[in-house]
Amino acid sequence: MRASKYFISSLKEAPSDAEIVSHKLMMRAGLIKKLSAGIYNYMPMGLRVIRKIENIIREEMNRAGAIELSMPVVQPAELWQETGRFDKMGDELLRLKDRHQRDFVLQPTSEEVITDIVRQEIRSYRQLPKNLYQIQTKFRDERRPRFGVMRGREFTMKDAYSFHTNFDDLKREYQNMFDAYSRIFTRLGLEFRAVAADTGAIGGTGSHEFHVIAETGEDAIAYNPDSAYAANVELAEAVAPATTRPTASAALTKVHTPGAKTIEQLAAFLKIDASQTIKSVIVDGDAGVPVLLLLRGDHELNEVKAGKLAGVFSPLRFASPATIRDAFGAEPGSIGPIDFQGKVYIDRSAAVLADAVIGANENDYHYTGANIGRDFPEPEVADIRNVVAGDPSPDGQGTLAICRGIEVGHIFQLRTKYSEAMNCKFIAEDGKEQIMEMGCYGVGVTRIMGAAIEQNFDDKGIIWPVSIAPFEVVICPMGWSRSEEVRKQCEQLYNALQAAGIDVVLDDRDERPGAMFADWELIGVPHRVVIGDRGLKEGVMEYQGRRDAEATKVAVGEIEAFVKGLFA
Amino acid sequence: MRASKYFISSLKEAPSDAEIVSHKLMMRAGLIKKLSAGIYNYMPMGLRVIRKIENIIREEMNRAGAIELSMPVVQPAELWQETGRFDKMGDELLRLKDRHQRDFVLQPTSEEVITDIVRQEIRSYRQLPKNLYQIQTKFRDERRPRFGVMRGREFTMKDAYSFHTNFDDLKREYQNMFDAYSRIFTRLGLEFRAVAADTGAIGGTGSHEFHVIAETGEDAIAYNPDSAYAANVELAEAVAPATTRPTASAALTKVHTPGAKTIEQLAAFLKIDASQTIKSVIVDGDAGVPVLLLLRGDHELNEVKAGKLAGVFSPLRFASPATIRDAFGAEPGSIGPIDFQGKVYIDRSAAVLADAVIGANENDYHYTGANIGRDFPEPEVADIRNVVAGDPSPDGQGTLAICRGIEVGHIFQLRTKYSEAMNCKFIAEDGKEQIMEMGCYGVGVTRIMGAAIEQNFDDKGIIWPVSIAPFEVVICPMGWSRSEEVRKQCEQLYNALQAAGIDVVLDDRDERPGAMFADWELIGVPHRVVIGDRGLKEGVMEYQGRRDAEATKVAVGEIEAFVKGLFA
Repeated sequence: MRASKYFISSLKEAPSDAEIVSHKLMMRAGLIKKLSAGIYNYMPMGLRVIRKIENIIREEMNRAGAIELSMPVVQPAELWQETGRFDKMGDELLRLKDRHQRDFVLQPTSEEVITDIVRQEIRSYRQLPKNLYQIQTKFRDERRPRFGVMRGREFTMKDAYSFHTNFDDLKREYQNMFDAYSRIFTRLGLEFRAVAADTGAIGGTGSHEFHVIAETGEDAIAYNPDSAYAANVELAEAVAPATTRPTASAALTKVHTPGAKTIEQLAAFLKIDASQTIKSVIVDGDAGVPVLLLLRGDHELNEVKAGKLAGVFSPLRFASPATIRDAFGAEPGSIGPIDFQGKVYIDRSAAVLADAVIGANENDYHYTGANIGRDFPEPEVADIRNVVAGDPSPDGQGTLAICRGIEVGHIFQLRTKYSEAMNCKFIAEDGKEQIMEMGCYGVGVTRIMGAAIEQNFDDKGIIWPVSIAPFEVVICPMGWSRSEEVRKQCEQLYNALQAAGIDVVLDDRDERPGAMFADWELIGVPHRVVIGDRGLKEGVMEYQGRRDAEATKVAVGEIEAFVKGLFA
Repeated sequence: MRASKYFISSLKEAPSDAEIVSHKLMMRAGLIKKLSAGIYNYMPMGLRVIRKIENIIREEMNRAGAIELSMPVVQPAELWQETGRFDKMGDELLRLKDRHQRDFVLQPTSEEVITDIVRQEIRSYRQLPKNLYQIQTKFRDERRPRFGVMRGREFTMKDAYSFHTNFDDLKREYQNMFDAYSRIFTRLGLEFRAVAADTGAIGGTGSHEFHVIAETGEDAIAYNPDSAYAANVELAEAVAPATTRPTASAALTKVHTPGAKTIEQLAAFLKIDASQTIKSVIVDGDAGVPVLLLLRGDHELNEVKAGKLAGVFSPLRFASPATIRDAFGAEPGSIGPIDFQGKVYIDRSAAVLADAVIGANENDYHYTGANIGRDFPEPEVADIRNVVAGDPSPDGQGTLAICRGIEVGHIFQLRTKYSEAMNCKFIAEDGKEQIMEMGCYGVGVTRIMGAAIEQNFDDKGIIWPVSIAPFEVVICPMGWSRSEEVRKQCEQLYNALQAAGIDVVLDDRDERPGAMFADWELIGVPHRVVIGDRGLKEGVMEYQGRRDAEATKVAVGEIEAFVKGLFA
């Protein structure tokens, strides 16, 4: 591609509504252009990235034996009424009427339509299993669309649906898709993790999310660097400490702790580590009476886990200050378990503490030397905290680390949720009708573009993985209009790289070097070759990788082989 | 592809709502599946065809220098209000509201959005010209969707829009797109014609339709087999005959013509050729009085041309029987120009007749030997008929032929219609602001699939052009489960053809030969190789092209080279 013939549109400043780095850089580099809230034009430079992402997904889905089709964006309400989703789904499902006042929806996914196709087309176990997918426009009418393509309203998704005669075969295909997704994200050049997305067994088989790792990710992920274990922090088990509780050695002593409202203030005041304190969290119970949850001072309550405890109101609701004063006779910050008559749970890690610090149920007072069983009854032990880095891994191998991720894929064993509602049956080998087992497998195509940037950028702009870069190599001439020799050398290299199938752009816009370099660094082209008269006099060109701090001089006669070598 | 792993779904009978051959065959071959009126799932086999069509279009658009982007399906009403189309367009424009009750439309085309992009992104003449295109889902809420993908509601279209500093540059790009479209339809393997779509100069530069030639096409096209001239029959000029009117030789004679209401009946009764008669058509005039149009009996009135005549009500409206009786004193069928006092037009071809037969304005009577100028005044001469095969070509070279076509592409010089309404300006070389000139260029991607079938089918099914066939070659084993040697030979050829980049399908479903052949003939795979034990004993396999009446025996050792040779 010649830059002069292309559509390049870079901005110095991102628009003010761009909050996150990927959104800002996509707008500045001219990859997308806002049309309406959460609705974007994919500009030429951005569409190149999207097409490369789509192609990698398509190749790996095909390789895994899935079959591509395409289902309409506009879908009749009847099918959505069969599963109840037409009424049950909130305003995210955009409903519309055609000229005859018939109800339709814009597809947010296509479980209903694919199940309708399969129940008509597939009759026999001999036609199963089948995995059908599409790469198609989706619409979700988000209440507050934001973050550019990360949480847009109109977006592109690859959605696949598999159909099976039995659960074992669904599990086999689920693993097949798990492997295909791993290949997809590997080929996309992204650091990613497959994360167990339910609270089932370790390595939970029912559902996995695929996350692109990025510091700016909205989800915290606990993972084991030495194994495949990974789970959303909300779902990762904090295993019981291997140690047992030491014998009590200190006497229960009430101390004045003026102004120490938080664990940090308390630990600083007493000059102890927060891990020596037990904090009290009071939540509403089922029965209208509060429930007390005890955790090590340095740990965080996990609301998902706590919400599932017997007797606790679900979803979890923190007790009001009035309820707390009523039940404990003190303000939050000085609360503790001694003399509390209601239900008490203690986290596994807090349960092994001895000689701890607890609230005294008297404003500005705490106890030191508090001991479970001696000073207050043994509470019920439960896993109610978020895991932290260094916790033992639930798979028994090594310890956990914590990272942040952006969900870009989700695989799910639907089982018979849709096939039962829509009567999607087959004739089994024994001649009897059976409901099909189903799986579904989604990848956010346009979201990957954002996630890739969140993982790969610097203060100059985007740093694309080569596999999805809009262009792989840019040739930057110094003085395009000035030097015939520069033009000749540029054209020669351009033609040679094109002939080798490399996606190369020649910047023939005759821009000044500063502006030209800034554009391509912002756009994030991985490889750059600079050709100028000064270098040519020395017999060299300058190569610089997008992550390189400095350029490398390469002899004119070797540049072609050098660049091709980068792709070998 | 192995057929057993793919989704093949053929039907013996087409559903009853399929009226035309392409719709029937697409349903029977499992290319599409109806979801709602005018809304279809593109099934795996059909999507393969669509992707091949898209790729050819994309390659040729890129080669022509156009740049791909993608605009949203859901577009805000504001832009459509700027051009007035939000209100002016009928119910074909599907309007909807999001959760915040804001107005949106589903894109039927994207003139508004592309003009909005360009007016923001392009400032200077130095950035022009640009031609931007997308291949994207469109929606038109047809009142009566029918003919499958030929007149659907949701469909895929390639729409391109070009922007220019001046009209000459628009005309240059228009020609560039004309050439690109010619390459596209040539590569698609379709017989097509570019047809002038306005009444402008010969070879009209303002707008061309591209038609796939098919007997079942909805448009009649007049073309010159020896030149590039082609036009919709409604628009093709019927040039004046080179001959002049002979001298009158017969006397005006009233004859009784009982029951001769039509020209056919009249000519049969008088034992003359219809071309010796002049028929009278009465239409409403502007002034409330009827206007008489005279044509040669064997010619058809062209309503578009007649509607443009001075004094004729537009759009053309035939006079009521009562009006006719009132003005002529006879029923339609016996009407003529003698003694008629109103305005009379005569077609160029009728104007050179002498001694003609005309209606006598008396029921069941006609005149023979009628002569213009002698028996009634010279009417105003005009071109008011449809051309017929054998007419001289308006470009002065040879004669016209007539064929039928299906419109699959349309190129159009929009000029400043949208750019003016939306204030899409650039800074010209002289520093002044100017409105951009625009062109637009559409191709109906899914419609091409239907048109290709209308042009290429027989009683067994579809006959795809190789370039868009879902598969290029099918290997049909005789006794897949029975013969190890057959399987071995099939696999070997399958692997060899795949390695050569040929899109081959191996039918490993173990179907009976009759059912297997019927499936692939219905689906329309262009090349078939049959491998069976009987042939292998003789050392041969059987090749048959989809249009071949009989199979050709090819030696086992030569089959690979033979099939590859078909693609050379």
